[in-house]
Amino acid sequence: MAHRNKLINIKMVIKVMGFLLMIEAAFMLTSLVFAFYYHESPVPIAVSAAITLVTGVLLWVFSLRKAPKNIGKREGFLIVTLTWLVSSLFGALPYLFSGAIPSFTNAFFETMSGFTTTGASILNDIELLPKYILFWRSMTHWMGGMGIIVLTVAILPFLGVGGMQLFVAEMPGITPDKLHPRVTATARRFWGIYVILTAAEVLLLWLGGSMNFFDAVCHSFATMATGGFSTKNNSIVGFTPYDQYVIIVFMLLAGTNFTLHYFSMHGQIRKVIKNEEFRVYLLIVAIFTVGITLGLMNYNAQSGEPAFRDALFAVSSILTTTGFVTANYLIWPAHLWLMIFGLMFIGGMAGSTGGGVKIIRHILLFKNSRLELKRSLHPNALIPVKYDGRTVSQQIIFNVMAFFLLYLFLFVIGIFLLTLLGLDLQTSMGASIASLGNIGPGIGGVGPVENYAFIPDAGKWILSFLMLMGRLELFTVLVVLSPSFWK
Amino acid sequence: MAHRNKLINIKMVIKVMGFLLMIEAAFMLTSLVFAFYYHESPVPIAVSAAITLVTGVLLWVFSLRKAPKNIGKREGFLIVTLTWLVSSLFGALPYLFSGAIPSFTNAFFETMSGFTTTGASILNDIELLPKYILFWRSMTHWMGGMGIIVLTVAILPFLGVGGMQLFVAEMPGITPDKLHPRVTATARRFWGIYVILTAAEVLLLWLGGSMNFFDAVCHSFATMATGGFSTKNNSIVGFTPYDQYVIIVFMLLAGTNFTLHYFSMHGQIRKVIKNEEFRVYLLIVAIFTVGITLGLMNYNAQSGEPAFRDALFAVSSILTTTGFVTANYLIWPAHLWLMIFGLMFIGGMAGSTGGGVKIIRHILLFKNSRLELKRSLHPNALIPVKYDGRTVSQQIIFNVMAFFLLYLFLFVIGIFLLTLLGLDLQTSMGASIASLGNIGPGIGGVGPVENYAFIPDAGKWILSFLMLMGRLELFTVLVVLSPSFWK
Repeated sequence: MAHRNKLINIKMVIKVMGFLLMIEAAFMLTSLVFAFYYHESPVPIAVSAAITLVTGVLLWVFSLRKAPKNIGKREGFLIVTLTWLVSSLFGALPYLFSGAIPSFTNAFFETMSGFTTTGASILNDIELLPKYILFWRSMTHWMGGMGIIVLTVAILPFLGVGGMQLFVAEMPGITPDKLHPRVTATARRFWGIYVILTAAEVLLLWLGGSMNFFDAVCHSFATMATGGFSTKNNSIVGFTPYDQYVIIVFMLLAGTNFTLHYFSMHGQIRKVIKNEEFRVYLLIVAIFTVGITLGLMNYNAQSGEPAFRDALFAVSSILTTTGFVTANYLIWPAHLWLMIFGLMFIGGMAGSTGGGVKIIRHILLFKNSRLELKRSLHPNALIPVKYDGRTVSQQIIFNVMAFFLLYLFLFVIGIFLLTLLGLDLQTSMGASIASLGNIGPGIGGVGPVENYAFIPDAGKWILSFLMLMGRLELFTVLVVLSPSFWK
Repeated sequence: MAHRNKLINIKMVIKVMGFLLMIEAAFMLTSLVFAFYYHESPVPIAVSAAITLVTGVLLWVFSLRKAPKNIGKREGFLIVTLTWLVSSLFGALPYLFSGAIPSFTNAFFETMSGFTTTGASILNDIELLPKYILFWRSMTHWMGGMGIIVLTVAILPFLGVGGMQLFVAEMPGITPDKLHPRVTATARRFWGIYVILTAAEVLLLWLGGSMNFFDAVCHSFATMATGGFSTKNNSIVGFTPYDQYVIIVFMLLAGTNFTLHYFSMHGQIRKVIKNEEFRVYLLIVAIFTVGITLGLMNYNAQSGEPAFRDALFAVSSILTTTGFVTANYLIWPAHLWLMIFGLMFIGGMAGSTGGGVKIIRHILLFKNSRLELKRSLHPNALIPVKYDGRTVSQQIIFNVMAFFLLYLFLFVIGIFLLTLLGLDLQTSMGASIASLGNIGPGIGGVGPVENYAFIPDAGKWILSFLMLMGRLELFTVLVVLSPSFWK
């Protein structure tokens, strides 16, 4: 090794956690609005917020004394991993104190699923729950989405994780090497976009007439975070076609690189249209939607519009890793639901709130595979991958391949562990990729009209871990778990 | 591109094909021994051999006129791909002319399965067939095994395909850059080992008493080629434990790098024991055998020895991609047969007759993934993968990753196409990997006690293609299919 590792600045890490918990407490308190409006007991959420706040203040005060200010890479990795872990621990309190989810494992799973914007649920009857709890549940999504924006804009580039350098180079105000002062401005700008889009969706859903304000807010939170928690037992099935189309549009917006939103808001439409990842994104949506629409019309002689809507909804929902449902794709013919299953391995655009492998990685992998054939014929020629007209360094391709292989490896490990717990192969495959990809619904026993309640506790912890891994681009968590990190 | 492509030397390619067909005809004629011994009509095999021979001579003579002697990389790729294709076309003649397999698709599938040492069969009642046909069937395996030895020793290194450079560096008399004169000597030496091991197995099985000479020869051919065709409907189930142990030993020997056999025959045992891939190979066999043995004893209270034997047999058979069967692993508990399914993605050692991804690639992928975490922490430090004490170039790691991703991609494409034809997911997964990995038995409808007869014709062509791709290390075939090859 070139240099000796210094001790990790634990005090600084604790200080950040303290700050984080204070913010979480503040967000928890917003649930009180709906508790009062719907005449529900405010005590559980107030107590949860109080505990979270006090813990946060104590951590903050404790770490104030002589905390060195320097934050290195290792502190970064630790802070990111702990952020999702600690938020989920405290975020589970409202479920526990209200009695909505009595089991700690279940409450933790539901919260981790919320913050990682997965949307996998252990709730059998969602509509029985107090409104303020459902609001908090949607809020974990929305906060998770905000966290992801900071993560992609500011923290991952700084940590050099996951081949995002290419995307970073396009983003205004970001250099991959150090935390640039303009990064904060960019993050704030993206948050602005996030808030505006959420507000627009709330308005459109509310004005549609079939959703009340509460449902409009909760579903908008879940859409823009590409989360997928609904306030209804049958997700989006019961809402009007208008609502479904609105949600489709916003799912697709949420799965788009926020840099492109920034460009289009500044009139730079040309930059949006010419973006290679965006084109492939739309192409995937188009191809899969057409294919499935035709398949559905052929299969059950469904008329055009509902078939098109079901297909487009399922494709948008799974590709962007949102996980809302308007149709049980598992009763479709095998090749149609396998197309949906295939989408689970793709994911949204880099720089969006969507999870999964991300489209840009697939583009690079595909281009590199094709060139690999050319390289076999001309071993001495340098044949680099080009993306958006620029040469991509072999180091980035290398990174992307390592990422994808590790991703598939974790997917397989997940399957194996779940089958050890007695789940069948399809359910294990579905649960593993739906968690790792932060999607929610999978295949088999965790299909779109099922939930995760029946999974044994050990399985829920495994899946929570996969959600965390997937959300934080694998390396962030694995680095913290590697022995060399702590040496 | 650095240089302009020249026209492909088609005449030379045709000449090699002519030579190949003459050899194939000669091997076909060996079946006559068993036709006479068992008083079966020699006409079909004689006619097949005659057609093959005449075609071979005609091609040879035609290409003699003014054929330039130079063979470049492109000719190499084309020759290798056509070798397996042309042999399978002519190798199907005995099945067709004898009426053993009346359908051309089935006959081609069976022959391709033979030459690629896959061992997937479309025959519902093997024991009904004439002995000389069964002998020819086993002979396709044995010839395929011989072909693979030449391929790995001489041709693939010359073509620079598949990250085999590392292995090549260890092999006596081989340089990756050009066809060294000593290569021929090495190939001959390895053929000698192949013949000696086959003869040893024939002798041990024959002396065991339960197999007659015919069965001993056929099973030895299928073992040493890691093929898997049996002369019995229930494969190895009906043979004695002694026979089963003999076959286990020779499957494991066939899955071992032939360089190690060469070393051990020359008393260099130290080199064998210290070989990293060999150690991992044995470790995988040991871990999976112990795990499955314990699982089986726990599951059906089976006593130790039969459980151990079934486990060791299944692990050796699938890992080396042979495909012989002594137990239906699909009726084992899910986590046990999933371990077997997992083995299908590993494969034998490089430089063996075994197929699959190969153990060395997994070692490199695993090592690189671990180092990738270290690299995240120390982005400026050069942290190379080490294998057998030497530094592995990043180019090789890159190659291996591209290979494995392409492998998984083809596996998925296979699944999708098969489900389009109406097969269920597990059958499609099983058939796809069992063909691509040249294994034979898969999971679902193509499990160890099933066969491939029920697969639609289109599916059989897809699977034949996968067998060819897997056997020729993907790139060899894909390069020929790429447009830039023909430009």
